[in-house]
Amino acid sequence: MFIAEKGIDIPAVEVDLRHEEQLGDAFRAVNPRCTVPVLELDDGSVLTESLAICHYLESQFPDPNLMGLDGQEQAMVIEWYERTVVDGFLAAAETFRNRAKGFKGRAITGPDAYEQIPQLVERGYHRLERYMEALDQRLGDSPFVALERFTLADIAAFVTVEFAGWVKMPVAETWPHIGRWHGVVAHRPSASL
Amino acid sequence: MFIAEKGIDIPAVEVDLRHEEQLGDAFRAVNPRCTVPVLELDDGSVLTESLAICHYLESQFPDPNLMGLDGQEQAMVIEWYERTVVDGFLAAAETFRNRAKGFKGRAITGPDAYEQIPQLVERGYHRLERYMEALDQRLGDSPFVALERFTLADIAAFVTVEFAGWVKMPVAETWPHIGRWHGVVAHRPSASL
Repeated sequence: MFIAEKGIDIPAVEVDLRHEEQLGDAFRAVNPRCTVPVLELDDGSVLTESLAICHYLESQFPDPNLMGLDGQEQAMVIEWYERTVVDGFLAAAETFRNRAKGFKGRAITGPDAYEQIPQLVERGYHRLERYMEALDQRLGDSPFVALERFTLADIAAFVTVEFAGWVKMPVAETWPHIGRWHGVVAHRPSASL
Repeated sequence: MFIAEKGIDIPAVEVDLRHEEQLGDAFRAVNPRCTVPVLELDDGSVLTESLAICHYLESQFPDPNLMGLDGQEQAMVIEWYERTVVDGFLAAAETFRNRAKGFKGRAITGPDAYEQIPQLVERGYHRLERYMEALDQRLGDSPFVALERFTLADIAAFVTVEFAGWVKMPVAETWPHIGRWHGVVAHRPSASL
């Protein structure tokens, strides 16, 4: 979604997560953490964290700006990106991966087999609700998540709201400000890729 | 540690975590997430994520550089900061907070009371070991964590290694490259504050 918003064209290799291609030797040689996404730079170095990848792309392709124009704006984008990942996205992953049959023995991303822990299903769901409450309050005060305009923080929050749908959380119906904002973001061409 | 490395002077307010001051009304009015650290800016806006705080301070006080000089360097710092937080620091917190008596009903930071889950003690410990293996491999190839010089990534990793000591993981003895690097970082004046 970040790449689409930038309007740049990067050679892409799909990794078949459904068939656990990320755990195979070929992908492991690229990223031993066995996670996606990965960005390989021209000098061969590899970035495996979304925020690092986006920061690098922002530095190379500054327009349109998606991560803030000055230090304070950038800090606000990082603030909401980090909150969204830790309080929202990881909570959603916790409830989803500890419940879904397809994730038996795969409760955490990466090369190791971690068994599901049933108590985390409820805990993750509750944590995700608390994140949505905070996001809704924020979107009552601000048209977009971090700044007055669309940024990476909106992408992270949008993906987290979509992910919440996987665990049947009725986000847009429950939290009106998120509902309003979600409708706006969902209409961006980058959201339908 | 970041502020000390910058050599800047910021008015500080200590929050008494031992007596749960972070859960009281006064602190909650500043940060409803009930977490530290927090940076209040002159315009009243508040940052509650360490990476956002450091990014803001780096933009205002660029010397000495602690987060990279160009987009690629900065991306490497963010890469290792994020890996350290998610794979290392949060894993250490998971094993520690789910075991220590003082954290009964406080298994996750924030305003909500989450009960300890015994299975997370072992899982967190194992995840932390895997992070240390990856860090050790990295420090076999590079004098410091993200770049050839000391950066924010070293601060995050140093704090995580110290935190691992709380759960009795003998990090410096087990992983020789971490041991070498830890000795270097521990001698910085900022490490003894």
